[in-house]
Amino acid sequence: MPTDNRHRYIAEVVVTLKPVVNDPQGLVVTQALHALGYPEVGATRVGKFISLDLEGAEESQVRARVEEMCRRLLRNEVIEDYRFQLRREEP
Amino acid sequence: MPTDNRHRYIAEVVVTLKPVVNDPQGLVVTQALHALGYPEVGATRVGKFISLDLEGAEESQVRARVEEMCRRLLRNEVIEDYRFQLRREEP
Repeated sequence: MPTDNRHRYIAEVVVTLKPVVNDPQGLVVTQALHALGYPEVGATRVGKFISLDLEGAEESQVRARVEEMCRRLLRNEVIEDYRFQLRREEP
Repeated sequence: MPTDNRHRYIAEVVVTLKPVVNDPQGLVVTQALHALGYPEVGATRVGKFISLDLEGAEESQVRARVEEMCRRLLRNEVIEDYRFQLRREEP
C-alpha cells in the first residue's frame, strides 16, 4: 500500500478575552494611542494569535484535532474564547 | 452642513515574531501539545491579536491611520511583523 495521503496544514488560532472580562492591557493600548494623537480609537482588546504547523490526512479530522487542542490547552475556558482558520499547504 | 459621514470600523491586527526570531513560548506550546498526545504538531509560533474599534470617514484614510498605529506603537519593528484586516461596521 504505497499511498501517502498526509498533508501539511496551518492552523491560525485567535484567542480573545470574553467580552465580559476586563482587559487592562487593551486599556493601556487605547490610552497610548490617544496620547500619540489617535483620538478616533475606542475600545481595544488584546488577545493571542497562535500559528500551528500540522500534518494530517483529511481536513475534517485535522479540524477536529485542532478544536480539541484549543479546548484542552490553548484557551482558558473561564475567561477566553477562541476561533481558528485551517488551510492546507501545497507541497 | 448637516452631513455626517463618520462610520464605525473594526481593525484586527495580528503581530507575529519575524521568522528569524526565536520563539520560546511557541516551543513550550509545541512540547505541551506533544505531551497531550498531538505528535502531528510541528512548529508553533505565538503572537498578539489586537482588535481596535475606530471611527472614521473614508476607509482608505482609516487604513492609513491603522498602518501608522502599527508602525508607531503596536509592533516592535526589530523583531515583529504585522498585518491587519479592516472592516466597516453597519450601524
